[in-house]
Amino acid sequence: KRQAAEEEPFRLRFVADTLRAMSTLPKLTYFNGAGRALGLRVALFKAFGKDGWEDHRIEFADWPALKPTTPLGVLPVLTLPDGRVVGQTEAIMRWAGSQSDLYPKDPVQAMLCDEITATCIEVLNKTPPGAGEEGRQKRQEYAAGFLTRALTLLESRAPAEGFFLGELTLADLMASVLTNMILTNDFDHVPASLVSDNFPKLQAHNDRVRADPLVVAYLAAYPN
Amino acid sequence: KRQAAEEEPFRLRFVADTLRAMSTLPKLTYFNGAGRALGLRVALFKAFGKDGWEDHRIEFADWPALKPTTPLGVLPVLTLPDGRVVGQTEAIMRWAGSQSDLYPKDPVQAMLCDEITATCIEVLNKTPPGAGEEGRQKRQEYAAGFLTRALTLLESRAPAEGFFLGELTLADLMASVLTNMILTNDFDHVPASLVSDNFPKLQAHNDRVRADPLVVAYLAAYPN
Repeated sequence: KRQAAEEEPFRLRFVADTLRAMSTLPKLTYFNGAGRALGLRVALFKAFGKDGWEDHRIEFADWPALKPTTPLGVLPVLTLPDGRVVGQTEAIMRWAGSQSDLYPKDPVQAMLCDEITATCIEVLNKTPPGAGEEGRQKRQEYAAGFLTRALTLLESRAPAEGFFLGELTLADLMASVLTNMILTNDFDHVPASLVSDNFPKLQAHNDRVRADPLVVAYLAAYPN
Repeated sequence: KRQAAEEEPFRLRFVADTLRAMSTLPKLTYFNGAGRALGLRVALFKAFGKDGWEDHRIEFADWPALKPTTPLGVLPVLTLPDGRVVGQTEAIMRWAGSQSDLYPKDPVQAMLCDEITATCIEVLNKTPPGAGEEGRQKRQEYAAGFLTRALTLLESRAPAEGFFLGELTLADLMASVLTNMILTNDFDHVPASLVSDNFPKLQAHNDRVRADPLVVAYLAAYPN
């Protein structure tokens, strides 16, 4: 009888663990910073709420051990409730966006949204490493080359008021990730003036995105 | 009276031009080769048929004059019937695919489709220029590095039979664009053996895509 009583906590713990495993949430793994995942986290927050997904933030010290287990050796990755691990920021973002009205249903609007998100991701993917004097020089060439060309396209698409496609979409979140990164001096060797001197519509657009109630609510609930 | 008769052909031509302008078709502009646009052309062919879109193929000699008029200085671009010009292969491909059952409606399937297309596009976008001895060396480093990592991911996703997500989708077309390019020695300085020796599931998958009735019908109707 005494033994049975002692086993009770274990059994309760087992039931609790099983229930938790059964209701596993989608899990995003990324570093503890905004980086390229900010818009994606906002989309997950809108799709699933504060407690409907797991915002798994890792430290840089833990990255070398985790890296070989990821699909392409990069973050973010999404772990689905069934255990499947999916890479590619844009793919995950579109999945969250399609469940939260942040991705247009109209095919032409969706294409215009995709053109903007793909351009921002291409900018981030092509950015050369910034370490050392060689890195600084390569970053400056990049800023004058493809980065400026991409920002010129985004500026030509940016509206004078509101968002790229009327309502807030993934395009706004992703453009804001890029321009805000530059404007806050978080893009090594690329000065904030690249945006503030040359792309006034993008700068004003970023202000509107950061002031949007969804983004404000996200930033109140998460570190960054 | 004589003057009126002479004006008739002009007026008829004017009417014909106006009618043509009113029924303008979506126009894809790309080089006269398969390149990264093959899957996109197949999707347009499935969405709009042989005569429902314009397959505008340009010669390399005409490219320098056209380049500055494109959104990012690259092809392909899509010109919509209303005149808007849109870039980014993946964006255009998803637009055509969503109108031709080549893009999954289920959000998770769509995400898995996007992960594969995004990975193939990332491979193409990051490929260093291949000219000269330096180009050859950089291409070989790339083949051993990111290209192999990406193909390893695609191989792990590739099914033993059929297509990535059951039915033929944009993921199959885009993966086939990449593997077929390597297998036909159309990826400078990357030997066909990179795929044939190391990624047997991708090689067999490419054979199935090339034998699919849609792709066979496309290749019968278009040069490549």
